[in-house]
Amino acid sequence: MKVQLLNSTPEPEKTVCMAARLCYSDNSISELDDKVQGISYEKFLGKILKMGHLSVLEHASFTFGIEGISRATSHQLVRHRVASYSQQSQRYVTVKDPEYVVPASIKDDDGRNKRFEDAVKSIYKLYGELVAEGVPAEDARFILPNAACTKIIVTMNARELLHFFSLRCCERAQWEIREMATLMLKLAKNRAPFIFRESGPSCVRGTCGEGDMTCGKPKEIRKKFTSL
Amino acid sequence: MKVQLLNSTPEPEKTVCMAARLCYSDNSISELDDKVQGISYEKFLGKILKMGHLSVLEHASFTFGIEGISRATSHQLVRHRVASYSQQSQRYVTVKDPEYVVPASIKDDDGRNKRFEDAVKSIYKLYGELVAEGVPAEDARFILPNAACTKIIVTMNARELLHFFSLRCCERAQWEIREMATLMLKLAKNRAPFIFRESGPSCVRGTCGEGDMTCGKPKEIRKKFTSL
Amino acid sequence: MKVQLLNSTPEPEKTVCMAARLCYSDNSISELDDKVQGISYEKFLGKILKMGHLSVLEHASFTFGIEGISRATSHQLVRHRVASYSQQSQRYVTVKDPEYVVPASIKDDDGRNKRFEDAVKSIYKLYGELVAEGVPAEDARFILPNAACTKIIVTMNARELLHFFSLRCCERAQWEIREMATLMLKLAKNRAPFIFRESGPSCVRGTCGEGDMTCGKPKEIRKKFTSL
Amino acid sequence: MKVQLLNSTPEPEKTVCMAARLCYSDNSISELDDKVQGISYEKFLGKILKMGHLSVLEHASFTFGIEGISRATSHQLVRHRVASYSQQSQRYVTVKDPEYVVPASIKDDDGRNKRFEDAVKSIYKLYGELVAEGVPAEDARFILPNAACTKIIVTMNARELLHFFSLRCCERAQWEIREMATLMLKLAKNRAPFIFRESGPSCVRGTCGEGDMTCGKPKEIRKKFTSL
Repeated sequence: MKVQLLNSTPEPEKTVCMAARLCYSDNSISELDDKVQGISYEKFLGKILKMGHLSVLEHASFTFGIEGISRATSHQLVRHRVASYSQQSQRYVTVKDPEYVVPASIKDDDGRNKRFEDAVKSIYKLYGELVAEGVPAEDARFILPNAACTKIIVTMNARELLHFFSLRCCERAQWEIREMATLMLKLAKNRAPFIFRESGPSCVRGTCGEGDMTCGKPKEIRKKFTSL
Repeated sequence: MKVQLLNSTPEPEKTVCMAARLCYSDNSISELDDKVQGISYEKFLGKILKMGHLSVLEHASFTFGIEGISRATSHQLVRHRVASYSQQSQRYVTVKDPEYVVPASIKDDDGRNKRFEDAVKSIYKLYGELVAEGVPAEDARFILPNAACTKIIVTMNARELLHFFSLRCCERAQWEIREMATLMLKLAKNRAPFIFRESGPSCVRGTCGEGDMTCGKPKEIRKKFTSL
Repeated sequence: MKVQLLNSTPEPEKTVCMAARLCYSDNSISELDDKVQGISYEKFLGKILKMGHLSVLEHASFTFGIEGISRATSHQLVRHRVASYSQQSQRYVTVKDPEYVVPASIKDDDGRNKRFEDAVKSIYKLYGELVAEGVPAEDARFILPNAACTKIIVTMNARELLHFFSLRCCERAQWEIREMATLMLKLAKNRAPFIFRESGPSCVRGTCGEGDMTCGKPKEIRKKFTSL
Repeated sequence: MKVQLLNSTPEPEKTVCMAARLCYSDNSISELDDKVQGISYEKFLGKILKMGHLSVLEHASFTFGIEGISRATSHQLVRHRVASYSQQSQRYVTVKDPEYVVPASIKDDDGRNKRFEDAVKSIYKLYGELVAEGVPAEDARFILPNAACTKIIVTMNARELLHFFSLRCCERAQWEIREMATLMLKLAKNRAPFIFRESGPSCVRGTCGEGDMTCGKPKEIRKKFTSL
């Protein structure tokens, strides 16, 4: 899996602070730039996040390039509707070199891993034959597994990212999307440290929201995300 | 493939007419019901659609139950973001009886079909073994093919449905989602004949919007959809 | 202010339960209807809400007709983006009988009320003159006050309504939108008692989320909303 | 009215081209940067727009600072739901220096203009008195007119902007929002000339979509927007 931050709103934290300041002051828009120069983003953004004034975070967007994830994970990812996606098409792009993801529960057992790898090889062999026989790629791909890798470019704004990380960095999320979300968070946090300071599953900001389903190790998780 | 209309806003066309009338009259809301009694929905809705006053269509929603479609198609479906989805989980539900879709380009050739069926059988056999060995369903499903069937409940409002049908009933859409969308349109049209009267690909309402990619048979397509 | 529930998804709670059941069982869609017959909606929906499995609530929509609210309030209302609106146009509809809202802080003081009423009367007089002189309604309305009444039809799904009520039924919301939201909640709760059972500001479901800004009377508020 | 482009996705056209290329090629994401270096954005974006492959435009966002518009116009603006807004609050910010918009149909007639100005002055005088007497700003503002100025920061992606300009730059839109949208388009076009090359009302790209309501001067309008 490879996750890159391809692009983002320049000076995301300044932009968010300007928007927040506009709502509650009588500054002109030209003055906003100056007005936020002196302030501590850490303190101001901390206050905004604590107040739940989250709409201002929407003015900062982040574009990620993600590859080496399975279609099982991309199917989950695209369920987040407040986001923009461009995904490599299995209809238009014929697969040449098979790329696929093997879950640890399979990979870590040699015999199991072999059976899985053999099955995948047979699948891609059949796929190649079908394409060679003139079956359209969009039909041949019906045999391809959920494990097949995909590439996708994703744009989300900071508000949606906080929500996304809250759900998908949690121990209860599927392992692959959790790994992907955690890499995204690391990159976003590097670019906008105060916006994403307490980002991650809900336990990072206080108490676990998963009830009986809790993983039971909030301390450990909190440590992991605060030191990301 | 089985598509059912599970539910919809009662009196969808009346509701839309009331909303449209509110925008441009000084009627009270209590009067709206009476005011739209006498009118011809056919004429009034025809006018609204022609004017492009589409926002009023959002007050009418339709809920479909869809099963027997492949995950290849559901992955395309859920890319439509102005909609609500509840999909059977491959993480939580272990597959017992394999159900899968075979494209015609494969099914129609006996030898090809046999190779495909054999491959699918091996895949489900391995899936069953992995589950039996204690591999979580969410990991075992990595071997399952795009052809695997899924079940999904979808709610869209009439405005989004018009957009969805415009894209997905077109000959250029993938054959399976086109078949599904056409069944949905038939059901929606039966419930709200004047809203969906000219629904379908853009050629139904005038000229093809696909440029060089046109299927070249707009007359035939128009006939198909107007008589649906 | 007058708020009516004009329309809603038939059997909203059954629809939501069917969608929830689909996600985690291997039932066919045709079986779902039967499968949810025997169950207690109260218990099942309580569980869904507690787990935060909120997406299934989107399959139930509610359409409200609202009149007698000020444009100050409708400007706040339409900021909720996951909803559909049809509002009486001040561009196309010329006001005949002035209708407007007077806040209690003005109405309750006789002198103040008189000055306010006199001002509003002068405003509507000028508006009428401008229209009579041939100034387009869309320009004449520039003189109309925020207090001017509007009529609007609003459709929201149950998930968005829970979010809306959480923000707008809170004591910290502006008094007029709070009054409106509370009337909407009462109507929705009557139609779908188990979905909206604990709906209202966050204190109804546990602790106040407003921090230092708390109204300080969570007990009172909780009582108000649970007995709505 | 003052409209500024405060921020935008860096290299918006390159970002969009990379996303489009990913969908239809087997390039890795790291290669995309190189692959789009040599190409003509003009040609490639022209093709994307013609094909209607608009989703890739969502990866480029633009943030505008707008002030000196009336609340009549901001009420229309915020009806566009695929966008992010931060607006100066009339609840929290007490107006000191009255700022308001006078439509030309009033301003251009001296007598009429005087009556309008006098009315506005009385209104702001009463507003000031109410605030001084301790009436909360959120209630005193009920007397303020639609003409009152507001300040707002707006973020939209390029796809939504194309849609917004299509509706709001049209002669049939209200004059003030049209003026604002045209200023926004000019700024966006300067930043991303090929994305917004044919942006504006539908007549710029071909035929008028307004039917009987057409302004009847498509040539003139087309010229205005292509030379913006």
